[in-house]
Amino acid sequence: MPYEFKLTRLVEFAETDMAGIVHFSNYFRMMEATEHAFFRSLGLTIHGQEMESTVGWPRVSATCDYQRPLRFEEEVEIQLLVAEVRSRSIRYQFVFRMPGSEVEIARGAIAAVCATVDKQSGKLVPMAIPEHIREAIQPAPAELLKPFASGRS
Amino acid sequence: MPYEFKLTRLVEFAETDMAGIVHFSNYFRMMEATEHAFFRSLGLTIHGQEMESTVGWPRVSATCDYQRPLRFEEEVEIQLLVAEVRSRSIRYQFVFRMPGSEVEIARGAIAAVCATVDKQSGKLVPMAIPEHIREAIQPAPAELLKPFASGRS
Amino acid sequence: MPYEFKLTRLVEFAETDMAGIVHFSNYFRMMEATEHAFFRSLGLTIHGQEMESTVGWPRVSATCDYQRPLRFEEEVEIQLLVAEVRSRSIRYQFVFRMPGSEVEIARGAIAAVCATVDKQSGKLVPMAIPEHIREAIQPAPAELLKPFASGRS
Amino acid sequence: MPYEFKLTRLVEFAETDMAGIVHFSNYFRMMEATEHAFFRSLGLTIHGQEMESTVGWPRVSATCDYQRPLRFEEEVEIQLLVAEVRSRSIRYQFVFRMPGSEVEIARGAIAAVCATVDKQSGKLVPMAIPEHIREAIQPAPAELLKPFASGRS
Repeated sequence: MPYEFKLTRLVEFAETDMAGIVHFSNYFRMMEATEHAFFRSLGLTIHGQEMESTVGWPRVSATCDYQRPLRFEEEVEIQLLVAEVRSRSIRYQFVFRMPGSEVEIARGAIAAVCATVDKQSGKLVPMAIPEHIREAIQPAPAELLKPFASGRS
Repeated sequence: MPYEFKLTRLVEFAETDMAGIVHFSNYFRMMEATEHAFFRSLGLTIHGQEMESTVGWPRVSATCDYQRPLRFEEEVEIQLLVAEVRSRSIRYQFVFRMPGSEVEIARGAIAAVCATVDKQSGKLVPMAIPEHIREAIQPAPAELLKPFASGRS
Repeated sequence: MPYEFKLTRLVEFAETDMAGIVHFSNYFRMMEATEHAFFRSLGLTIHGQEMESTVGWPRVSATCDYQRPLRFEEEVEIQLLVAEVRSRSIRYQFVFRMPGSEVEIARGAIAAVCATVDKQSGKLVPMAIPEHIREAIQPAPAELLKPFASGRS
Repeated sequence: MPYEFKLTRLVEFAETDMAGIVHFSNYFRMMEATEHAFFRSLGLTIHGQEMESTVGWPRVSATCDYQRPLRFEEEVEIQLLVAEVRSRSIRYQFVFRMPGSEVEIARGAIAAVCATVDKQSGKLVPMAIPEHIREAIQPAPAELLKPFASGRS
């Protein structure tokens, strides 16, 4: 029952902007890619089928504190920590670091709700997290979860 | 000395994802587009020149709470409010609404620091906000600024 | 029965890359945005419903010749010309220009096939262009359509 | 003196659109990522320094023919072939395939010109390809390079 996962990525050219650094919106894509790789590492998929319904994880909130810029072809390690598991939602924390270093580049969080797409309306309807997903993950120990400078954990 | 700005956008196909809704990372691009349009409305640019130096606004933090999904070809109005002006940084709040409606789609915030690109090192160095920018904006009245559900304002 | 449409856009920060210019992949998003605005101008939508089926326009080919770079906050006018209408596909040409100028920034083309999403398999299946769409557009006169330097028109 | 390179990628959620498939513009980002990985495999970088000048590779043209859609979490292998090396430009061909299969997903091409950023004007000025780059690569044998259906090779 893991509560942690690490993904290493190389910054791509298309992720940079004219300031010469990774555009701030792309940190959210990197967090999401880490979340999805975490699911795959458990034999799960973030966009699966449960009893003929499509299950997805729309976001309730997302946040990022930026400490150092990231540049083209730099490597970054993104650490995912499961911060909280509720009946219908999961909250993750993420820390971006230079690989092999304790120096933080950024720190973020995403809260996502488990939802199914109603076939008639096409709308997303919250649902209880399927048992086999709930059993596969657990929250990280509290001492690993640091509060954000701004109060949003 | 305005403290508010509104931008209306139409959701583009490339902003959606396979869940059929705007990808959550694109809300941050919409917030930034609103910030930049706010600057242009004041005769300023977010990426300008001050005494032979390039001045930019790297992000310190960004956050978004998602309430309702946005779909292709839907119109969205993004309201920017200046939440705080400090000596070297500005904090904005954003509210996403259906145009002509009070129904909120999302609510976000960005804090950005004024910085110049050091010509030798290429690094971003924080600097005092130029006087003509500081004079052009002011914080919104406190009663217009609502706290985030999660505590980050 | 129009065969032409023009869209004017302002280059956004997130569209640039570390070379300080619009990333070449974003020209394809601008072409698509112009195609979709063309459809809306005719009272159509590119992602509509026909007799309970979702109709879309997956791309068969896309190409772009780049002549001049585009920079942040520059205005660009994108001219769409309908190059060919076949039973199940449409081909467009696009010319990017500085507004009010004949100077070309880029020139591109997209060929798209009309397709419906099969509800069982989720696969895209080509279909005849619906009559009301076919009636709403026509190919541009041949003299307006210039061949590409490289032979792909 | 290699003329070929292969990169394998997993389709990310943010690369899909509401049609449930990879957005057509993202194939160009995948081609570019393959080009850059090819350069790294030779000990080079696509955005390097030559005698105090920044050297880049702005695109002259880019094209893609789409044969099969790509979906979330599918693996794709992108094969790069050097199609032509001229004094100031390089042309690449790309073939997208399911790994371990001959079935083609897409086929594309990019032509890029070697350029340096003029420090005064900030403009991109074409230049001869540096000798150590020219020596590191060579064109693929003609029989490996297939013409595009549409004539642009």
